[in-house]
Amino acid sequence: MSNRVTVVENILSANDQVAHLNRKLLDDRKIFSINLMASPGAGKTSFILQTIKALSPSFRIGVLEGDTAPVTIDADKVNAVGIPAVQINTGGDCHLDAIMVSKGLEKLPLEQLDVVIIENVGNLVCPAAFQLGTHINVLIASIPEGDDKPYKYPAIYRGIQVLIINKTDLMPYVNFNMDYFRQGVEMLNPGLVTFPVSCKTGEGIEEWVQWLSAQIQTNRS
Amino acid sequence: MSNRVTVVENILSANDQVAHLNRKLLDDRKIFSINLMASPGAGKTSFILQTIKALSPSFRIGVLEGDTAPVTIDADKVNAVGIPAVQINTGGDCHLDAIMVSKGLEKLPLEQLDVVIIENVGNLVCPAAFQLGTHINVLIASIPEGDDKPYKYPAIYRGIQVLIINKTDLMPYVNFNMDYFRQGVEMLNPGLVTFPVSCKTGEGIEEWVQWLSAQIQTNRS
Repeated sequence: MSNRVTVVENILSANDQVAHLNRKLLDDRKIFSINLMASPGAGKTSFILQTIKALSPSFRIGVLEGDTAPVTIDADKVNAVGIPAVQINTGGDCHLDAIMVSKGLEKLPLEQLDVVIIENVGNLVCPAAFQLGTHINVLIASIPEGDDKPYKYPAIYRGIQVLIINKTDLMPYVNFNMDYFRQGVEMLNPGLVTFPVSCKTGEGIEEWVQWLSAQIQTNRS
Repeated sequence: MSNRVTVVENILSANDQVAHLNRKLLDDRKIFSINLMASPGAGKTSFILQTIKALSPSFRIGVLEGDTAPVTIDADKVNAVGIPAVQINTGGDCHLDAIMVSKGLEKLPLEQLDVVIIENVGNLVCPAAFQLGTHINVLIASIPEGDDKPYKYPAIYRGIQVLIINKTDLMPYVNFNMDYFRQGVEMLNPGLVTFPVSCKTGEGIEEWVQWLSAQIQTNRS
């Protein structure tokens, strides 16, 4: 058992070292970066597309798409709107790590970018344990997933700087107690910056993009 | 790298050995068992509660609840309807393994049961790699997760005997192409037994429970 703990600690330490290098690479080029995490189907790619639409007139964006299989559905969607996107196939692994991201960053035209958005693998457990070197970790929760997720997956809620609550348009059709949900989040991560949005209707996207634009400006100045 | 592969293979082999023992324990008692997998928030616990409601007049049910945190929300819900439920806290691990299930089974009153339902951790990646020793692996997909999940998480779709498509009541409010979804499933797992259901309205539950009852009867005879 103690051997196992040692192995896990070494892996994390190596990951953190590479995460530190990723951050330096991005900071040297004044690129703001986002690690976007969520359950499968919470709307990560739709959220990226909405963010690109609102942000791309002002800033140059690049995207890394994490997938467990060699299927480029998400990267294709991003490329289709004229944004450089690189797929990272984890080969079955349930999360991105800093080394995979390091290799992905090499394939993006970094000299031409202001922002890099990294779409992690759809998973609420392991992505929380691997820092990628980004400036912020963002989690998307979605209304149909239910209001108990902060209570059940506390680690990921503790390690984020921004929470997006997506699919607010489905509120009338599901049982979701927003007070109970927010109480769980507040307990784990007091004062967390939170944006309720609907990627379907576009509601709430403007507020998020205004906040994000301010972060990108600060990072470039 | 080759060391890492060896370690992973040894873990899986040990898991499979314990899975085999779990199966023998269940078979000796003629208990039919289900490994229930899904994304976070696809409706695993609601589905278990609906199944209990329809099945418990005829059969005696026990439940193991896998969670990554020591939060007994799901086990409490099952206990509240008078069904023995034991929580397995994975301590942060993103899946159940056969050893955890073996320990959980020890805490259930097996002599008094016809069926054991095991709710895995909400995750579409790693649970697919760990057999628990159950008679069937069941996956719940849910409509708001989107129609591209079979393409993005192929391994879990390949390793199941039954697919539940939950939250059909939300079909009018989301973009979900059922033909595209089913085509992806058929490619990975031809002829897969599939039940569209709504745990909210109860639609489709009867068909699933009829099928399940037949499996339990066959297993007892």
